Amino acid sequence: MHEWDADTRVDPTGDGRFTAHLTDRWSGPGGRPNGGYLVAFCLRALGEVLPHPDPLVVSAHYLRPGVVGPVRVDTEVVRTGRRLSTGEARLSCGDREVLRVVASYADLGAATGRTLVLGEAPDLPPPDECVDVHGGARRSDITVADRVDLRAPKPHGWAQGRPTGTPHTEFWIRFADGRPADTASLASLVDSAAPAVLELGEMDSTTVELTVHVRARPLSEWLAARVTTRYLVGGHHEEDVELWDATGQLVAQSRQLALLPAG
Amino acid sequence: MHEWDADTRVDPTGDGRFTAHLTDRWSGPGGRPNGGYLVAFCLRALGEVLPHPDPLVVSAHYLRPGVVGPVRVDTEVVRTGRRLSTGEARLSCGDREVLRVVASYADLGAATGRTLVLGEAPDLPPPDECVDVHGGARRSDITVADRVDLRAPKPHGWAQGRPTGTPHTEFWIRFADGRPADTASLASLVDSAAPAVLELGEMDSTTVELTVHVRARPLSEWLAARVTTRYLVGGHHEEDVELWDATGQLVAQSRQLALLPAG
Repeated sequence: MHEWDADTRVDPTGDGRFTAHLTDRWSGPGGRPNGGYLVAFCLRALGEVLPHPDPLVVSAHYLRPGVVGPVRVDTEVVRTGRRLSTGEARLSCGDREVLRVVASYADLGAATGRTLVLGEAPDLPPPDECVDVHGGARRSDITVADRVDLRAPKPHGWAQGRPTGTPHTEFWIRFADGRPADTASLASLVDSAAPAVLELGEMDSTTVELTVHVRARPLSEWLAARVTTRYLVGGHHEEDVELWDATGQLVAQSRQLALLPAG
Repeated sequence: MHEWDADTRVDPTGDGRFTAHLTDRWSGPGGRPNGGYLVAFCLRALGEVLPHPDPLVVSAHYLRPGVVGPVRVDTEVVRTGRRLSTGEARLSCGDREVLRVVASYADLGAATGRTLVLGEAPDLPPPDECVDVHGGARRSDITVADRVDLRAPKPHGWAQGRPTGTPHTEFWIRFADGRPADTASLASLVDSAAPAVLELGEMDSTTVELTVHVRARPLSEWLAARVTTRYLVGGHHEEDVELWDATGQLVAQSRQLALLPAG
């Protein structure tokens, strides 16, 4: 079993409720469980209660920081239809709700309609010609960086103490132990790298809401990521992520609204 | 009172519940209430129960078509904090839930952090030098087009039977009776125009989920809109909208996931 599957396990306790355990192995700055890691528990649980196999669109509102330890996930089946089904999941640490997710599921294998792709995958050299984006800047509190490999032609500017001034990064991403991404884990991978605003010299950013569109089942282990922020207004910014597989297929698109720390 | 305010009125019945009436005055194809119109009822109700004045990020999952007539909105205050508060609203027609919204509110007047804008407002001539985007193609079932003015240098290609082949449109938008947009109505205006995929010769598209980021309080009646679809995959597509006020301020950004009719 891959570490992702072991570390996102949910156990049903009946009536659409689940228990689980947040590990300290997928944490961001300050040892707080990564936002993408929190989403995973909600999607594992919704995958158990909804009839369709693939999350198609996931919206996640972050309410409080997650806390390592036992958690509860309560699900509700909101609607099931032929083409789509929708559910809600609430992740709680103790009696405090940490994350609320509403997600619509579909069968991406049955999506046979028209295709027209007007963007392109990031133009990156092969992963084995790339280096760790963190350079020598790995921090012991950020354990998610040990579990998710990120590679680019050269380390990110911010990781070398020289932010580029441009909030745009491109890199390869995969689970470090070689676990293939599936449609559910794409919703976590889009939130597994450092925010692009670090290239503006910012030190951190807090996600308020994350929406993920899953577009296709990935066909390669390594995925090419493009991360962009275009509008930072009054300390609020969006961050857009695209993930493409190595066959040139767009597999996920995400957007989050995040806040810089209050001045 | 402007027609928008009258037609989105909600009446509290206690315990965070509201009754309202869906009119036939803001409908899209087939006389189905427009998706942006449905969101409005949820935000009117959440505005009554949350302490912050402005929707900051709104995610809306569309479950079924709305039906003209009496509706119910049930709200839940999920969390209230100093900087943000979050609530959920469920809009039901009869006993069928039509729309589920989760929204986080803030005080945009207090957003005093860093600003860096890397995109530009659409480059449009003034509204009084523009024409109705529908040309002569107004349909009697699409009543929202009577309530929301849309103007561009020339009518949209699809409206003249000549789709441009490029799913990108830019135009001015405002309430037809001159009501100024506020932060809550921005979340409806982003979904009040025809989808950009009409420029690909498609006839319709169904929204599954709509996320709106409200960035600033609008300072002009007319807003400049940019609507873009870049990825149509297996009949699923995103649609991105930006709204800018006439002072050159980005006021809202939205993305929806939508489906073309099943083949």
